[in-house]
Amino acid sequence: MAHRIAVIAGDGIGQEVMPEGLRVLKAAAQRFAIDLEFTTFDFGNCDYYLEHGKMMPDDWFEQLKDFDALFYGAVGWPEKVPDHISLWGSLIQFRRCFDQYVNLRPCKLMPGIKSPLAGRQPGDIDFYVVRENTEGEYSSIGGKMFEGTEREVVIQETVMSRTGVDRVLKYAFDLAKTRPRKKLTSATKSNGISITMPYWDERVQEMAKQYPDIDVDKFHIDILTANFVLHPDWFDVVVGSNLFGDILSDLGPACTGTIGIAPSANINPEGKFPSLFEPVHGSAPDIAGKGIANPIGQIWSGAMMLEHLGYKEAGDAMVSAIEAILAEGDSSVLTGDIGGQGTTRTLGEAIAKRL
Amino acid sequence: MAHRIAVIAGDGIGQEVMPEGLRVLKAAAQRFAIDLEFTTFDFGNCDYYLEHGKMMPDDWFEQLKDFDALFYGAVGWPEKVPDHISLWGSLIQFRRCFDQYVNLRPCKLMPGIKSPLAGRQPGDIDFYVVRENTEGEYSSIGGKMFEGTEREVVIQETVMSRTGVDRVLKYAFDLAKTRPRKKLTSATKSNGISITMPYWDERVQEMAKQYPDIDVDKFHIDILTANFVLHPDWFDVVVGSNLFGDILSDLGPACTGTIGIAPSANINPEGKFPSLFEPVHGSAPDIAGKGIANPIGQIWSGAMMLEHLGYKEAGDAMVSAIEAILAEGDSSVLTGDIGGQGTTRTLGEAIAKRL
Ligand SMILES: CC(C)[C@H](C(=O)O)[C@@H](O)C(=O)O
Ligand SMILES: CC(C)[C@H](C(=O)O)[C@@H](O)C(=O)O
Repeated sequence: MAHRIAVIAGDGIGQEVMPEGLRVLKAAAQRFAIDLEFTTFDFGNCDYYLEHGKMMPDDWFEQLKDFDALFYGAVGWPEKVPDHISLWGSLIQFRRCFDQYVNLRPCKLMPGIKSPLAGRQPGDIDFYVVRENTEGEYSSIGGKMFEGTEREVVIQETVMSRTGVDRVLKYAFDLAKTRPRKKLTSATKSNGISITMPYWDERVQEMAKQYPDIDVDKFHIDILTANFVLHPDWFDVVVGSNLFGDILSDLGPACTGTIGIAPSANINPEGKFPSLFEPVHGSAPDIAGKGIANPIGQIWSGAMMLEHLGYKEAGDAMVSAIEAILAEGDSSVLTGDIGGQGTTRTLGEAIAKRL
Repeated sequence: MAHRIAVIAGDGIGQEVMPEGLRVLKAAAQRFAIDLEFTTFDFGNCDYYLEHGKMMPDDWFEQLKDFDALFYGAVGWPEKVPDHISLWGSLIQFRRCFDQYVNLRPCKLMPGIKSPLAGRQPGDIDFYVVRENTEGEYSSIGGKMFEGTEREVVIQETVMSRTGVDRVLKYAFDLAKTRPRKKLTSATKSNGISITMPYWDERVQEMAKQYPDIDVDKFHIDILTANFVLHPDWFDVVVGSNLFGDILSDLGPACTGTIGIAPSANINPEGKFPSLFEPVHGSAPDIAGKGIANPIGQIWSGAMMLEHLGYKEAGDAMVSAIEAILAEGDSSVLTGDIGGQGTTRTLGEAIAKRL
């Protein structure tokens, strides 16, 4: 039976890296005899907004809900539509309405990629960030009062539910169990954010009781970001709230030199709704249209999608193909951000061919 | 006339670095003929809490409000008192009740200190983080509902006022004006945190109109932390909310290898209340009592205090003495964290003597 994949390329370089993601996915599907069926949607981008006054049609949920996965590019073009409108009108809706409560992001130092950290080698850095993806600091509750006056004040609530916190913690602990080091680090800020963060700590402590074999520690987010730079080798699975996970899953890839190539999976673990796979990088309007964007984040996200659909071997083969091309370091193939003179397409084709 | 300084050493290594901070301040006072009068207070630490059930006496405000400055060590000892109680009962009260709405933290790559970032030299990294220090994410509004049940939910509000945002922005823009590069970077997350952060951006845009000579940019906090690692040379003055400033002012010093030696100033710019000067590092219970803590954060904070009191030359001389001792690199003098075999005291004495 075919796996039905909804494809939404989005804005900017999303449009350019998506074809390469599809190219490599198709190569993997062929090699491993996987039946993938792609359906492309042209909403969920800022041009659609300019035309329709909204990011997606009213029945987007109906249109997408029965797909097996969403393969997603990048969204946002602030000169056309303010970011909080374009993102809340697309990506954040998917995460929330499809209950993709886990955002999973690997941070791995790859061969051939130079870390900005002194003296770090492939193998030294290899951890996952597990981010809560539906509640927390990304709430839509709040507002403004005394607008336009000196007394103006804005308020926004952070909301954490026991259900919401526990289920992402459970996912993170379960993931830690599968890892050789069996270590989980919780991101907190309970010394400063005095209501929600002590609650987060409480739930971590509670959950830890069910996982006596997992080595658990916690750091306040400020010193945790410092430790990503100073001791990236300390980490195995790092779990954080929506905002803290967001920060750590950009900082982690930055430390591994892979900010332009890191992938992510927005997962509904129960499989009740489709999960969504997208590169960590944004739509990068400044380099859009030039054909120079690095497609690896999109391709690697495709690998995570295959693994999610049950094809671990195929996903691993895609990652190995990426690693092989990076290790080869042929500058006519690699894009400029990783030291080559190639294009989005040369790099995508090389990886597809390697498969 | 004497400048009256209140001294609160706090917990853990705060007790050990404080004497060295005072030693070097006294040396500077002597050399520059500054009249400093120190008064030590024994509250504001976790042992005081264990004895009295509170971190400070009820009249702490009265006792401290007429001092010219507070010289502060570090507070917190989670095995004795949970952090959110000890911190909200001391440091956060000072910041709030003395309206120290600017938290100023230099990030500077010093001679003799190895940056964890590959290939960065002294001179490459030299910027300030200006942090809003009284409102924002560190609010005390919120609570818990359906306690102890599956439906349990906690809520905490982020509160930003026009007054609160504008005054710290003004301080940051004014600071940028005094710097050679005249550049200001705003930390935001308006694509995800959809009410308070777009408001922050609005106020930055508004304030920028009054500073046409300042080069203004902004980054979302996730990619901003990445850029601290990838392009620390981009930054000159970075301004952020209470939480974002907190994160950036640990990450910045981590990138300069100075997490253990970075200073900070909690400033009430109008001088209506005393300002507070403290190292960025915490109380480090794990190494407390061993005499091995690095005292430079405390000493450098003393230099910021002298500058704040109007003695720029004396403050600069203290920083030069620190730089000279670091550049010399005598391992019998330096503490272990920066590659030596010395003690808190040998390092403090060496800097005092150099003055
Ligand atoms: C101890 C803690 C409450 C404090 C803060 O978050 O403000 C500290 O991290 C700091 O940066 O001064
Ligand atoms: C674009 C933005 C809303 C989004 C987020 O903050 O979640 C992005 O940074 C991400 O990490 O996926």
